[in-house]
Amino acid sequence: MGLFTKDIKTMNDLFAHQLQDIYYAEKQLVKALPEMADKATDPQLKQGFLTHLQETKTHVQRLEQVFKMHGLSVKAVDCPAIDGIIEEAEDVAGDVADDQVLDAAIIAAAQAVEHYEITRYGSLIAWAKRLGRNDCANLLEQNLQEEKAADKKLTDIAESKVNLRAA
Amino acid sequence: MGLFTKDIKTMNDLFAHQLQDIYYAEKQLVKALPEMADKATDPQLKQGFLTHLQETKTHVQRLEQVFKMHGLSVKAVDCPAIDGIIEEAEDVAGDVADDQVLDAAIIAAAQAVEHYEITRYGSLIAWAKRLGRNDCANLLEQNLQEEKAADKKLTDIAESKVNLRAA
Repeated sequence: MGLFTKDIKTMNDLFAHQLQDIYYAEKQLVKALPEMADKATDPQLKQGFLTHLQETKTHVQRLEQVFKMHGLSVKAVDCPAIDGIIEEAEDVAGDVADDQVLDAAIIAAAQAVEHYEITRYGSLIAWAKRLGRNDCANLLEQNLQEEKAADKKLTDIAESKVNLRAA
Repeated sequence: MGLFTKDIKTMNDLFAHQLQDIYYAEKQLVKALPEMADKATDPQLKQGFLTHLQETKTHVQRLEQVFKMHGLSVKAVDCPAIDGIIEEAEDVAGDVADDQVLDAAIIAAAQAVEHYEITRYGSLIAWAKRLGRNDCANLLEQNLQEEKAADKKLTDIAESKVNLRAA
């Protein structure tokens, strides 16, 4: 993600780079979520991924707003962290014999994605506030709350059925 | 991490693989934390990394206990997710002009590591319980609580001084 290059001199540079990082992550997730929905066998889980896909598309739009509000060009930077996490999440080859075990594995992979986003939004919101950009922080906060809700929903599905049946 | 290979047929296989994944992550972190402590400029942050290094060494030992309790050989598997996250965290080349901005960047990178561990321990604990291994779940819970505390400490440091000064 180039967080630690010489290009980063100020908190503003750091904010801009982190924004490019999460923008890349959200765009990658727009591609990954339909595949995860395809592979999931539990209907509630499948539907959950499709709902979160719609939310994720909104997150991309909100990030584009933040770029513009803060006078930055809309840009994504490669990020090895999210690539690694999504690589694991996408690697669900359907080879797991038991459907419930497969769903449990997909949920774990999706939660790793959510937690990555939660931590990145947490930093971004703090930095936006320090930069006096409460307007940007508010938009980022909306994305954060939806990521947290998605993570909680995955935990609920896992606890209510998938893990129970897979044990 | 090989989570979705044909080798994974049961919840027990999934648990074993996830355990190998987090074992790899903790061992990588034992190598990464001293470097992060070196690069941090805030004394409290520096000390925080060194304290967490000691905790992380204990996490490795607890994981080895869990492997043995559950009749598994102690083994690590490569995991592109944590490699990507630590690659970002280690990439702090000291080129950032402003020390406070550097610390803010290091904290964000460290929190991404903590959140990865938090989500993995969350899944592992749920699966251990479903497998009737409350003894394993208890040990994993100890690691989880320390990761959560480390994450909170990083947030506190960021909010109390680093972000404030860097703005």
